[in-house]
Amino acid sequence: MYRTATCGELRLCDCGKEVTIAGWVQRSRKMGGMTFVDVRDRYGITQVVFSHEINADLCDAASKLGREFVVQVTGKVEERASKNMNLPTGEIEIIASELKILNKSDVPPFTIEDNTDGGDDLRMKFRYLDLRRPAPRANLELRHRMAFEIRRYLDANGFLEIETPILVKSTPEGARDFVVPSRMNPGEFYALPQSPQIFKQLLMVSGFDRYFQLAKCFRDEDLRADRQPEFTQVDCEMSFVEQEDVINMFEGLVKHIFKYVKNIDFTEAFPRITWADAMKYYGSDKPDIRFGMKFVELTDLVKGHGFAVMDDAEYTAGICVPGCAGYTRKQTDELTDFVKRPQIGAKGLVWVKIAEDGSIKSSVGKFFSDDDLKQWAQAMNANPGDLLLILSGATAKTRKALGELRLEMGNRLGLRPKNQFAPLWVIDFPLFEWDEETQRYYAMHHPFTAPNPEDIPLLHTDTGKVRATAYDIVVNGTELGGGSIRIHDSELQDTMFELLGFTPEKAQEQFGFLMNAFKYGAPPHGGLALGFDRFVSMLAELDSIRDTIAFPKNNSGRDVMNESPSPLDPAQLDELKLQLQPLDK
Amino acid sequence: MYRTATCGELRLCDCGKEVTIAGWVQRSRKMGGMTFVDVRDRYGITQVVFSHEINADLCDAASKLGREFVVQVTGKVEERASKNMNLPTGEIEIIASELKILNKSDVPPFTIEDNTDGGDDLRMKFRYLDLRRPAPRANLELRHRMAFEIRRYLDANGFLEIETPILVKSTPEGARDFVVPSRMNPGEFYALPQSPQIFKQLLMVSGFDRYFQLAKCFRDEDLRADRQPEFTQVDCEMSFVEQEDVINMFEGLVKHIFKYVKNIDFTEAFPRITWADAMKYYGSDKPDIRFGMKFVELTDLVKGHGFAVMDDAEYTAGICVPGCAGYTRKQTDELTDFVKRPQIGAKGLVWVKIAEDGSIKSSVGKFFSDDDLKQWAQAMNANPGDLLLILSGATAKTRKALGELRLEMGNRLGLRPKNQFAPLWVIDFPLFEWDEETQRYYAMHHPFTAPNPEDIPLLHTDTGKVRATAYDIVVNGTELGGGSIRIHDSELQDTMFELLGFTPEKAQEQFGFLMNAFKYGAPPHGGLALGFDRFVSMLAELDSIRDTIAFPKNNSGRDVMNESPSPLDPAQLDELKLQLQPLDK
Repeated sequence: MYRTATCGELRLCDCGKEVTIAGWVQRSRKMGGMTFVDVRDRYGITQVVFSHEINADLCDAASKLGREFVVQVTGKVEERASKNMNLPTGEIEIIASELKILNKSDVPPFTIEDNTDGGDDLRMKFRYLDLRRPAPRANLELRHRMAFEIRRYLDANGFLEIETPILVKSTPEGARDFVVPSRMNPGEFYALPQSPQIFKQLLMVSGFDRYFQLAKCFRDEDLRADRQPEFTQVDCEMSFVEQEDVINMFEGLVKHIFKYVKNIDFTEAFPRITWADAMKYYGSDKPDIRFGMKFVELTDLVKGHGFAVMDDAEYTAGICVPGCAGYTRKQTDELTDFVKRPQIGAKGLVWVKIAEDGSIKSSVGKFFSDDDLKQWAQAMNANPGDLLLILSGATAKTRKALGELRLEMGNRLGLRPKNQFAPLWVIDFPLFEWDEETQRYYAMHHPFTAPNPEDIPLLHTDTGKVRATAYDIVVNGTELGGGSIRIHDSELQDTMFELLGFTPEKAQEQFGFLMNAFKYGAPPHGGLALGFDRFVSMLAELDSIRDTIAFPKNNSGRDVMNESPSPLDPAQLDELKLQLQPLDK
Repeated sequence: MYRTATCGELRLCDCGKEVTIAGWVQRSRKMGGMTFVDVRDRYGITQVVFSHEINADLCDAASKLGREFVVQVTGKVEERASKNMNLPTGEIEIIASELKILNKSDVPPFTIEDNTDGGDDLRMKFRYLDLRRPAPRANLELRHRMAFEIRRYLDANGFLEIETPILVKSTPEGARDFVVPSRMNPGEFYALPQSPQIFKQLLMVSGFDRYFQLAKCFRDEDLRADRQPEFTQVDCEMSFVEQEDVINMFEGLVKHIFKYVKNIDFTEAFPRITWADAMKYYGSDKPDIRFGMKFVELTDLVKGHGFAVMDDAEYTAGICVPGCAGYTRKQTDELTDFVKRPQIGAKGLVWVKIAEDGSIKSSVGKFFSDDDLKQWAQAMNANPGDLLLILSGATAKTRKALGELRLEMGNRLGLRPKNQFAPLWVIDFPLFEWDEETQRYYAMHHPFTAPNPEDIPLLHTDTGKVRATAYDIVVNGTELGGGSIRIHDSELQDTMFELLGFTPEKAQEQFGFLMNAFKYGAPPHGGLALGFDRFVSMLAELDSIRDTIAFPKNNSGRDVMNESPSPLDPAQLDELKLQLQPLDK
């Protein structure tokens, strides 16, 4: 061992001890006849002092140390004259008696500090240096701690972690698969799993009862800022359970993580909201309930006053923004511009200001009297000083737009602090989604999700109304995970495939082995998957999952550090019996 | 929840309780006016009794249950009249008052019992049923427990589990890579990692100090009985350490696993043997030291008696097999046939029997007197009743053959019981292996392994003699894992690449990003990887790793359950800008 102590552990009580530390030179500075060197490792930073008076050669050597040199220092722990209480080791320093340079370093291309001068691209190219900075390191430490605590909780609850294969069968349903040519079976390919869904259901058929896995999943999608081609999910499945059992088990897991990782106690049950109410009150199936401003529908109240926008609208609703009656014209114009952005898609915004003195101003004074507007204010539970923001249009689209506006107002008012967490369950999702383009139903979750037993009679008569036994856990407006009770009856599964437009042959081809398995006594079962990268980014209070991953890919799916993907040796292609298509094909 | 108790938990103290269990029908039998049904789940088997006298309809329904039906039974726990003490629940039974069939089952293609009538291929095709049998289930439970305890030990020792990518850069050195075409970067490919070697070394450069991962690794090799295209390794790396530190840490890990998983205490340090001694005494770099029979070299002793085989041999050595002097001619002939098999490759076998009365018989009486042979016996520490088995020939080949013979004798004498474990460290491996065919040196471990510092002066002058700072942990004749101290000095690394025949360009192309990383202050570091599948199979006392894997591939790399790999949709190939070569190319 090159050290007797790490750079993070020495304290006042260690004074007088002879120690050896090893680490990287964070910085070195000369002051009078002394050279001070901060030595850093994963555990902290310790100040080392070289005195010219005591050992001139050593002090000279120390003053020549470059940034990021790897050094080993032996010396005596002493109390500092001027303490640095921001540093856990800030009360001591080491008076060096020996110095060994274990490795030199070129000058790094950016400073190894949280507040670095390195841009994003440079830091990704030199990711191994980027990871020396405290913030990325803390993110990976958090990730480790969370994974460990997830395993501890699930193990204690009788779950077995079972590894499912990475080389699986390609199923062209869903997102695009990454595929792997098989040399031993020329012309055939494996796929990388988009999730272990089918395997975990097979494990329930096998009687494993409680399964989990921190599973690597792969999707060949065009990457957006917050997507990675490979990601990790906490994948779970249980047998002989109903929705309530799954929700309780994983609410327990989420509480456990908050408790043991963030020291946050959730003493109450997480709120639950139906999908229908989530859309009605928040215009989103993943509402951020850190703040209020729930939608109030005004469709009927606003009709018949000659304002065509509202008279003709299928739906009108608004939010009451507390304390913003003083918004200037510039500010309300900004909001109007915000809702008219193509991503939001509203045609305009109606605002009503309820001044502190009770007087009312609005953008629709031409059509509505103060009394009319007071009725609105009453319906929306507005107080003096509040600002009403109202949108009209087709129901689904308008709800979505108003939902975005609500989040924007939450941001503006600072009501979405990253260190405050508001989890909830969204339940009773629709089983099917209608797609206008292809004129068919798609499974909102996946084709194995069980309908709500009460709605089974509606499957053929009122397909779109059938609710699923599906549930999402949402935190701060982000879907942390979701799951469902699965169909365990093969006749019901056949019905589902039929409603989803699978011919029996196609269903057999793609899911045959699962359907066959179900003939041999499938137990009732259900489960859930949590996005692990997302979960970590949430607790790390990050905007992106990328910073929770040691070696992420960029938006083109490239690792700029090792320059992959890369061309193959022609011999490798030959062995795989493959050839490249001309690129202009 | 469909149950109030599992099928494994009810005991005498539960008598009188009303309970509900759910599980699979293991078997049902009628006796007089009663039907007995054994209900099975992951946790055990519970006997349920239906009495015709109490409820005729229910009893009739129960008698119609087929094997593997999924049932839910409510009833009262009662003490059994005739107890089955082989079953943890064997003192009680449930007197059923309700029975619900949750799912029917076709008759399974083989019996769901350890002693099944299903052949290997059938069980693999219906792996989800095979996994219902107690033995495969126990193997996966053991695997879970071992993974959990490995994580617990390493976490307690300050290691962080860090996920490294699965989509990596292809490096055509070493075994063959599986590759993944990139749709977003046409003509380019990712590879699946053969190990996280480079990433873990980068993590040391990043200052993570102690890393581990239960890592999925991939090798596209022609499969032998005990290989899988994807496998799991316990991958670890530490900074600022020397060989002694790594060995101590992972000896601690192995001891922890034996203690907490098998309740076996290793109180002594594991023995260590140099590679040279392992070859000298056991003819193998992974000696099985559950038993003795160490080689004794007789090269000089046996020369000069006119026996050309020994006179001309570079090397003669033997093993002393205790208590086998009574072997018949048939038995010694069998052993001769054994060593002459092409896999062993010896030309013949010399035997000497030391009878209990001290008289001596041998296969070389023509050339050697009894006094000569007594000298052999003395050199080999033989006792009356022992059998000496002796081989001659070229050193390396003969050692290997004698090693195989030693293992064979261990098997014959029952000296290799699976439930006895004899770990040891093999150290001081050679750094290089000479390959006659290509007339160049190869790295015995990998090109990042550090030479023994004492041998650095020999690098250019006596390359083949240089020892590596590399170590394997061997248990019962199987390599459980191995590792090395790595080169952290980029000049020494350049020398290594040069000795291994890499041009600077080739080295830069393949390992450039690692070599660049090393310019920025790489700490001294080293690590180790354990074959996790192997480790599990060892503790499960299995012959093959396949039985430790939930969904393994067969020897052609196929999953016969889901029939992968499989052909792709032509549209998928087009998206990837790939086409298949004609198969007769």
